[in-house]
Amino acid sequence: EIVKGAVLAVRDFHVPVVLVGDKEQIVKVLKDNHADQEPLIEICHASQVIGMGEHPGMAFRKKKDASVSVGAKLVKSGECGALVAPGSTGAAVTAGLLGMGRVDGIERPAILTPIPNRKDGYTFLIDSGASAQPKPETLLQNALMGYVYAKKVWHIENPRIGLLNIGEESTKGSPVVTEAYEWLSGQKVVPFAGNAEGRDIMSGEFDVIVTDGFTGNVVLKKSVEKGGLRAKLGAFLLKPALKKYLVKRLDYAEYGGAPLMGIKGGLIICHGASQARAIRNAIHMAKDLCEARVVDVIAEAVVQIEKEAGRLKED
Amino acid sequence: EIVKGAVLAVRDFHVPVVLVGDKEQIVKVLKDNHADQEPLIEICHASQVIGMGEHPGMAFRKKKDASVSVGAKLVKSGECGALVAPGSTGAAVTAGLLGMGRVDGIERPAILTPIPNRKDGYTFLIDSGASAQPKPETLLQNALMGYVYAKKVWHIENPRIGLLNIGEESTKGSPVVTEAYEWLSGQKVVPFAGNAEGRDIMSGEFDVIVTDGFTGNVVLKKSVEKGGLRAKLGAFLLKPALKKYLVKRLDYAEYGGAPLMGIKGGLIICHGASQARAIRNAIHMAKDLCEARVVDVIAEAVVQIEKEAGRLKED
Repeated sequence: EIVKGAVLAVRDFHVPVVLVGDKEQIVKVLKDNHADQEPLIEICHASQVIGMGEHPGMAFRKKKDASVSVGAKLVKSGECGALVAPGSTGAAVTAGLLGMGRVDGIERPAILTPIPNRKDGYTFLIDSGASAQPKPETLLQNALMGYVYAKKVWHIENPRIGLLNIGEESTKGSPVVTEAYEWLSGQKVVPFAGNAEGRDIMSGEFDVIVTDGFTGNVVLKKSVEKGGLRAKLGAFLLKPALKKYLVKRLDYAEYGGAPLMGIKGGLIICHGASQARAIRNAIHMAKDLCEARVVDVIAEAVVQIEKEAGRLKED
Repeated sequence: EIVKGAVLAVRDFHVPVVLVGDKEQIVKVLKDNHADQEPLIEICHASQVIGMGEHPGMAFRKKKDASVSVGAKLVKSGECGALVAPGSTGAAVTAGLLGMGRVDGIERPAILTPIPNRKDGYTFLIDSGASAQPKPETLLQNALMGYVYAKKVWHIENPRIGLLNIGEESTKGSPVVTEAYEWLSGQKVVPFAGNAEGRDIMSGEFDVIVTDGFTGNVVLKKSVEKGGLRAKLGAFLLKPALKKYLVKRLDYAEYGGAPLMGIKGGLIICHGASQARAIRNAIHMAKDLCEARVVDVIAEAVVQIEKEAGRLKED
């Protein structure tokens, strides 16, 4: 499915793709799909794979020739602009963090997940699982990275950025979130629209919802379960009009991916069981990420925002 | 609706009820419902109300004659066994905390919310919003209180208690959750079934899911929004079989309430716009809470668990 997805992407978007993995297997699938003569496809052999059950950090250090590590190196060396990584999320985050490195000034990379909302658009949840240690600095930087993505990659002119909290009032929430609220209110780099609540993840009131990786991951996994339930029920119980609506939403789990923001290079994390169409769409996301020069924009903006936050801290 | 709900409860469960609030108004509604001669209903006048928009702590201190404060006093003095509080959640938590006091040894009270799960039962999420400061001690005590509720009030013989985390492995998650995992694994008071994920809130794999009030509240509010969406769609799009299923689930938002655990007395927090049937069911929950002597059981168990956790900390 991965190779098939790459073939689709090459043909639909005319973007050059390097396929990293077992060369023999890749060549076979390319031939089966009449794409072995495709000039935009290259193959880079990698003999190892990091499995879903492995400890990402340990496996990354041990398996130097794992496809995700080799892919990260291709981005670091500049041969590729971005890596699309289907499989273990932990391995992808580790490969981004250790193989490509963080953007200067960024404390922790964050996963940005597009969630279909009720206004027929997407709300970007950042962080949805890269870093489980919530700090005010991290939330501020997540806001910044989410803003850059919404503005530069999705071309939303005035993105609404919300901070995930347990109420709309500025004084509500944990000390970490309350402090992040103050910082966000006190700076001018990122337009801050105030607190968002759990229900806003799907309400469409915000373009970006900022949270820590722990809360984001819990909320996201709850959605996946609900999707699963609806998918099962939907298959035989739903009327066509609703089915169409749900299928659109469920598609999300099956296609595209989630960019890891804050590292020196593009990285799109995909589900391990992604279908060809999902891979094709993830490659398009990777292309958008490169064209928007997201890494450079973040590097510039983080200097600005840290200056403003530093001033606030001193006050 | 509140008075009507009390009338239903008195007639269905033969439980004596004291109605706290504006006496004149209460008498009028009782008369309208032919219940002004009901021997099991008493009235206790209270001249003030804490509104949804008020700061709970400040309003509680200022409005000495607010219905929620007067109700808490009735429980503290022993005149009533439990308080059913429809309206501001913050005011109810404050009334429980300051008006009734914490159970000795309990650091922070926690809201336990029953969530309908896929196995046609309920999963109890604790804490779903009382305390936003996650500490390992708090999570351990939440596990204990959830266990007592599942075992003593719902008579689940061997409740499965899970810790909400971002993966099944014991080493995943934030430092606070990792430490709570170690403590829970090392004690014998509460049977601990390991980490639960976001999807398990509805999977029915666990009877109790333990989390901090911040994460719990965010996850819960996400559900409410989804309920709303399905309710809207459901009304005109769903086939009857699915509609029945969803209506059962949506009912939850409209009836019953969530007990505040860890205070010296029963307290059921209800939605401000609860219908009569919701109030009736909340009164039943309050009755169950009293009959199970939850306050005493928690007080005894917390001594045990703190001893075991203390031993672990010393190791």
